[in-house]
Amino acid sequence: MSEDVRDPARVVAISDGVIAIAATLLVLEIRPPADTEHLLHGLLALWPSYLAYAVTFMLVGQVWANHHVMFDHIRHADRMILFLNTVLLMDIAFLPFAASVLADAFRDGHGERTAVVMHGLVFFLAAALFNLIWWHARHHLLSNNINPAGVRAIGRRFQLALLWLGTATILGGLLPVLGVAVFAAFIAFYWLPISGELGFTGPRRTA
Amino acid sequence: MSEDVRDPARVVAISDGVIAIAATLLVLEIRPPADTEHLLHGLLALWPSYLAYAVTFMLVGQVWANHHVMFDHIRHADRMILFLNTVLLMDIAFLPFAASVLADAFRDGHGERTAVVMHGLVFFLAAALFNLIWWHARHHLLSNNINPAGVRAIGRRFQLALLWLGTATILGGLLPVLGVAVFAAFIAFYWLPISGELGFTGPRRTA
Amino acid sequence: MSEDVRDPARVVAISDGVIAIAATLLVLEIRPPADTEHLLHGLLALWPSYLAYAVTFMLVGQVWANHHVMFDHIRHADRMILFLNTVLLMDIAFLPFAASVLADAFRDGHGERTAVVMHGLVFFLAAALFNLIWWHARHHLLSNNINPAGVRAIGRRFQLALLWLGTATILGGLLPVLGVAVFAAFIAFYWLPISGELGFTGPRRTA
Amino acid sequence: MSEDVRDPARVVAISDGVIAIAATLLVLEIRPPADTEHLLHGLLALWPSYLAYAVTFMLVGQVWANHHVMFDHIRHADRMILFLNTVLLMDIAFLPFAASVLADAFRDGHGERTAVVMHGLVFFLAAALFNLIWWHARHHLLSNNINPAGVRAIGRRFQLALLWLGTATILGGLLPVLGVAVFAAFIAFYWLPISGELGFTGPRRTA
Repeated sequence: MSEDVRDPARVVAISDGVIAIAATLLVLEIRPPADTEHLLHGLLALWPSYLAYAVTFMLVGQVWANHHVMFDHIRHADRMILFLNTVLLMDIAFLPFAASVLADAFRDGHGERTAVVMHGLVFFLAAALFNLIWWHARHHLLSNNINPAGVRAIGRRFQLALLWLGTATILGGLLPVLGVAVFAAFIAFYWLPISGELGFTGPRRTA
Repeated sequence: MSEDVRDPARVVAISDGVIAIAATLLVLEIRPPADTEHLLHGLLALWPSYLAYAVTFMLVGQVWANHHVMFDHIRHADRMILFLNTVLLMDIAFLPFAASVLADAFRDGHGERTAVVMHGLVFFLAAALFNLIWWHARHHLLSNNINPAGVRAIGRRFQLALLWLGTATILGGLLPVLGVAVFAAFIAFYWLPISGELGFTGPRRTA
Repeated sequence: MSEDVRDPARVVAISDGVIAIAATLLVLEIRPPADTEHLLHGLLALWPSYLAYAVTFMLVGQVWANHHVMFDHIRHADRMILFLNTVLLMDIAFLPFAASVLADAFRDGHGERTAVVMHGLVFFLAAALFNLIWWHARHHLLSNNINPAGVRAIGRRFQLALLWLGTATILGGLLPVLGVAVFAAFIAFYWLPISGELGFTGPRRTA
Repeated sequence: MSEDVRDPARVVAISDGVIAIAATLLVLEIRPPADTEHLLHGLLALWPSYLAYAVTFMLVGQVWANHHVMFDHIRHADRMILFLNTVLLMDIAFLPFAASVLADAFRDGHGERTAVVMHGLVFFLAAALFNLIWWHARHHLLSNNINPAGVRAIGRRFQLALLWLGTATILGGLLPVLGVAVFAAFIAFYWLPISGELGFTGPRRTA
């Protein structure tokens, strides 16, 4: 590894790969009903798995989108960014397990608190790593196509995510259903357009 | 996420990734026969799994091809497109489960109606999302390399898919084998070239 | 899907994705020994799984390399190429199942003939599809960077693969160990450089 | 396959794919606790799985980074490089199995020596293949953007990895916990920046 690594394109490519695979592996944790004689009943009883699948998949979709927002503005990927990004990918790749535990707990009616907290912690850690990477990058690794207001806007957005996901995790430890609801609200909030939130200058290449 | 996202190249890349992974995961739902003493018999008894595998894989191949047709002409990927595309990927990534349920039902001789309807609904939802994305994009997000006749031709094709897959799903609810046959006919129809169906102008980069 | 599709780059990208995933999924079919008290013994007893893994992985590596050789020279990917390539990917993606059946048969000492023949047929079908794609492409879809001698050389190579893999499959139906040996010899043959085999002109970009 | 293959871009692409998939599949080997009544207890008892997951994932991250360091400087990928790289990918793709065996052994308190040695051998083989590829490439396949000092620096780094991982494997055969600790120290060593270690000239594109 060079000490002065530059092009983040490959970091983005491998990250996209891991994120896409982690999202697609989520389905493997949903086991088809063994009893096909009452298949409709068995499929309906799997609602916690569908819920865990949908919430996790949509959150991963946001992780992906925000990862691109971040790396669109990172010109140099130094060793610290590589390291933090690898930890981020390790965290994201853990989601199929967390989603499976979440579904099992709601299906059995036991351990929902534990499951919601663990599932939430994975996303909370992801948000923390986004903040760390951005905090590390913003001093001397950013490209010229973003002004200080844009840097702060993205920073605020990542801090908000940290706060929101942390709150959802804590609430989930008290009342699991409430925690899941706050996570779902976060998905809606992040996908809806927010007027004036971001003030980029320069070419906007985000997708 | 920027409010004015532009380059759909990354959307296409992540979509290709999820589609490729979902298709390749289909095989994991086929469990090798436990009894190797009568291996040929056991392998032949898995015919419903092979059928579910082949029908689903070929349909996913068409989803992939049509996704490229669509995004070849989308110049801007706004927030709504990103959202709808993420829901589309969530739907496609669900297919290994649906195919597994389908195979189990035909193997056991129970629940075929339920299984065919669920499997069909996943593709029907995909077709509906294609129509939504195209309907949303066609007003102000398309590139210049397509004329109004081309836009309408693609739109008609997506509407036909919605109608065909919806019909197959309903028929499958009445007579499962008939539903599967209509799905299989759709595969043949979409792969065969259809003279004059599409009237693109400008460079044709579709693949 | 356009009737006149041109750029095969995306076909190559999705094919690389499916091939990489199929190869990497092979390992999921190797189940860790349940009894850790005699772990070394249990690991050694899995030798048929390691053999099936290695033979299949190396053959998939050759499929990948030859897929690039072929598509390096295909300038247009028409609808028929798309269709045949999708069937090829469906065949390759089936390999984790075939490798698992092969390992189970050798582990149990039952059904080796059936398993070797099925495993061989998957590769035989892949070779047949390579020949079909090349046969279809060679008349009017090739790029200018290959001369007739090069076209014939690649064609001969694909025909040889068809013959070799077909022979290995038939021999495996008679004497399973012999079939596996002939497959292994094919791997060695294809990886070793063969002087004068290929007579490309123009830029050689193959990798 | 051409006898004189040149562009390593595709080799890098397929390698990135296999590495990303292998890393992301690691999570599938962690089975959620069956007993949700004592979920927290069950989740904590899975610590060997988390450890195996984290150590293996971070090591794979280094394999990925070093693979790019190496191929950044390889201008031609000849047949031997293709072959050695395929064996390397076969080795990396085996890691989900090795990590699973490692976790099982520490969970059960049996077979830790065997498991640590097998897990270590997979990484030792990877290091050996890095050395072989670099040794083969350095004579006539390197690009001009590296000087002899840089070539030797990378070579020394790969030799160090071979020595370190070999030592960790041997120590693990004597005292499993010590082996794991030496592997973990290797992760820390490789991610930390090392002043003056590498003396590249020319464009530094490594990421």
